[in-house]
Amino acid sequence: MSSYGSSALRQAVLRANLMIPEAGLAALTWGNVSGVDREAGLYLIKPSGVAYSELTEEMLVPVDLATGKVLGGELRPSVDSETHRAFYLQWSSIGGVTHTHSTNAVAFAQAGLDIPVLGTTHADSFSGPVGVARQLTPEECATDYELNTGKALIELVGGDEDAVGMPGALAANHGPFTWGATPVKSIEYAIIIEKVAEMALKTLALNPNASTPAHLQERHFKRKHGPGAYYGNAGVLPS
Amino acid sequence: MSSYGSSALRQAVLRANLMIPEAGLAALTWGNVSGVDREAGLYLIKPSGVAYSELTEEMLVPVDLATGKVLGGELRPSVDSETHRAFYLQWSSIGGVTHTHSTNAVAFAQAGLDIPVLGTTHADSFSGPVGVARQLTPEECATDYELNTGKALIELVGGDEDAVGMPGALAANHGPFTWGATPVKSIEYAIIIEKVAEMALKTLALNPNASTPAHLQERHFKRKHGPGAYYGNAGVLPS
Amino acid sequence: MSSYGSSALRQAVLRANLMIPEAGLAALTWGNVSGVDREAGLYLIKPSGVAYSELTEEMLVPVDLATGKVLGGELRPSVDSETHRAFYLQWSSIGGVTHTHSTNAVAFAQAGLDIPVLGTTHADSFSGPVGVARQLTPEECATDYELNTGKALIELVGGDEDAVGMPGALAANHGPFTWGATPVKSIEYAIIIEKVAEMALKTLALNPNASTPAHLQERHFKRKHGPGAYYGNAGVLPS
Amino acid sequence: MSSYGSSALRQAVLRANLMIPEAGLAALTWGNVSGVDREAGLYLIKPSGVAYSELTEEMLVPVDLATGKVLGGELRPSVDSETHRAFYLQWSSIGGVTHTHSTNAVAFAQAGLDIPVLGTTHADSFSGPVGVARQLTPEECATDYELNTGKALIELVGGDEDAVGMPGALAANHGPFTWGATPVKSIEYAIIIEKVAEMALKTLALNPNASTPAHLQERHFKRKHGPGAYYGNAGVLPS
Repeated sequence: MSSYGSSALRQAVLRANLMIPEAGLAALTWGNVSGVDREAGLYLIKPSGVAYSELTEEMLVPVDLATGKVLGGELRPSVDSETHRAFYLQWSSIGGVTHTHSTNAVAFAQAGLDIPVLGTTHADSFSGPVGVARQLTPEECATDYELNTGKALIELVGGDEDAVGMPGALAANHGPFTWGATPVKSIEYAIIIEKVAEMALKTLALNPNASTPAHLQERHFKRKHGPGAYYGNAGVLPS
Repeated sequence: MSSYGSSALRQAVLRANLMIPEAGLAALTWGNVSGVDREAGLYLIKPSGVAYSELTEEMLVPVDLATGKVLGGELRPSVDSETHRAFYLQWSSIGGVTHTHSTNAVAFAQAGLDIPVLGTTHADSFSGPVGVARQLTPEECATDYELNTGKALIELVGGDEDAVGMPGALAANHGPFTWGATPVKSIEYAIIIEKVAEMALKTLALNPNASTPAHLQERHFKRKHGPGAYYGNAGVLPS
Repeated sequence: MSSYGSSALRQAVLRANLMIPEAGLAALTWGNVSGVDREAGLYLIKPSGVAYSELTEEMLVPVDLATGKVLGGELRPSVDSETHRAFYLQWSSIGGVTHTHSTNAVAFAQAGLDIPVLGTTHADSFSGPVGVARQLTPEECATDYELNTGKALIELVGGDEDAVGMPGALAANHGPFTWGATPVKSIEYAIIIEKVAEMALKTLALNPNASTPAHLQERHFKRKHGPGAYYGNAGVLPS
Repeated sequence: MSSYGSSALRQAVLRANLMIPEAGLAALTWGNVSGVDREAGLYLIKPSGVAYSELTEEMLVPVDLATGKVLGGELRPSVDSETHRAFYLQWSSIGGVTHTHSTNAVAFAQAGLDIPVLGTTHADSFSGPVGVARQLTPEECATDYELNTGKALIELVGGDEDAVGMPGALAANHGPFTWGATPVKSIEYAIIIEKVAEMALKTLALNPNASTPAHLQERHFKRKHGPGAYYGNAGVLPS
């Protein structure tokens, strides 16, 4: 299987998957990360039902980006593979996708409520509320369920540019999906969604009418995004 | 004591017991796992009041499946031994039983409320709400209390086939019992019950009227159960 | 300082103090355990403001049981020393005392609410609700504050026999104090109070009218207490 | 960069920054500590966007106290640098500043609610409620945003003496800032604010009308502050 994906991609996808249990985002095997190689037309994804503690680079499943077919090896990909694929096909700028069942984000997905923008932690990463996709119809559940899950999330988020400013959303009664320029970026947004969901849940318990001024929200989003961004040290840090 | 149960069973029961503190499911000694050897007509169970950090294979207590009598050694079995035995006698398909006092599952047991199906995390493992057994009568508490605890849970769950689709339930004002094909499977369901209980508690805080469409629920249960199941890599993973 | 208290007592008091951060019961230095040597007429207690990671047997402060005076060394005892002393003088059966600021128990103390008996986890250790002591008067706060804190808790709990069945209580707007036959037993009850407080808080969020049948409560208390107790393996475990 | 700040200051600022993830106060890189050298007219602060696991003394950014300009090195300081600087200029007694996005303190900041004094854990460290600063105007958000964040917090807290008795406050819809005599003291107050916020949130869930008698509050504040203070062993501990 070592012929699929670059060594750097395999390392990044493995590393990002191992961050799921490290960050406490999933019990058992409830979460998966993938990373794409657009030139090679494939993505690597966690195999289904394998414990993180046993996961190796060799076990990552290579999937054809155009067809969704497994390209090699004996392991089945995560059951959510087709949802990942839908995102890669729709959003050309993304390099990694993460799905978890993190507790607080799931609580909003199960409650059918968007995670509202209640402060700067949220506004630093998301251009608005983190939305819940619409429910699938019985037909969409019966056939191509995982693909349809992706389509409903895309319907909510929009095009390539929207996906940059809104790097995650909630599948109804299910849980969060996040995406980013790399596999590690996508799991970082999964960490952020869980934190802002927990903060929002506690904020609403204290004050059901809490909100954030639009100008504060905008200011924080722009500290990290766009031409005037001034957060971080990317490019100047010794690597 | 090494003459009771196979070496593989002893290892599995020890391993499953050690997963209780690893998964944060019990303070002090509040939890126990057993595993059955139906050919030998016995099960091995954690001794009562022994710290997990001191537990060894040799300390596991062998109990006669037919009579409930301790077959050897000097240690008393978990006080819940008779509840485990009731399950083994009722459900021929199960190989392991777990009992914990995990916080969120206990909260539902103490509130006297079933854990409702609010999303796919729940539906992946349970065919419906995780129920609370009826209260025992004063008489049932006074005599054969632990056996009667088991009987009330069986009354709620049903026969062998029901126990496969519903691998756990809550003893009223007490806490969760779970079961599965092996001791490790039974503790995995204990981990799952705690997580779905925490998710449900937080979901209901956000939206007391939350619910899940039946077709989504069914879809997820069938991804992991029955002839069309396609989750996991059992059988294809290098062992 | 090695001449005060037996080596076994020093080890036990150190061990019990280190269990405070291990069990997550206190941030920074917010908790202390003591252990008494009634023959020598002294108790050993954690010094005030010392980090657990730096604590040694030699730093434990020996205090005269009759007068409350420090018997040796250069360190000041925990500011709560006089509260511990009040308990030792009142209850001849106890050997150790613990005080923490564990979050959920503090929440009940700050809310001015007893922790109600909502299930068997609680009933296994406490003969009834864990009570909140009355508020101290301005005069009691101004002079001998820590001693008066102890007196108010004793007023609530009662005599020696009561203290066995009710090994802990809450100082109003402050936090839990627990006691037991040994220093380690007293910190175990501190762990239990925190857990039952968390369970109660979550239970009441789900069902404000939750309660436990008296016969179930009694059954569980008697499994661990009195002549018919059958929990545990004290005396039969290889030591 | 080793020519800026004493070796002791660099060590203290690094140590205090590493306490942020150790104490669970921030996900990813959401927190920063600085320490001042008033004689040299500079402070050292965490660089922006650098992971705690990669942080070294050499990476700490030296900033001119009078002008806010970076004195050396290639890394940008934390985006919150100007807020820290405002505090150092206003309060001559402080030696360290901490900012985090700890969950429960953020919940109060997002809810727009002061953390009320509900018990002795709070009163031990703060002379009154931990307040939320006023919202910034659109103009204050557009220009010198971080400096204005500091000014609004100073407006709330007051002068040098006030800052000693109230070593922290909440930026509206943002999160906690804390300060103290040293960098480590400032992060200790960040730990305390998070704990008292969590206790307050749970207390209010149990009893929305909870409060503390003024005489108890005063007694605890004075145990740790002012001429009659008798908590701790500073000065007598073997160092």
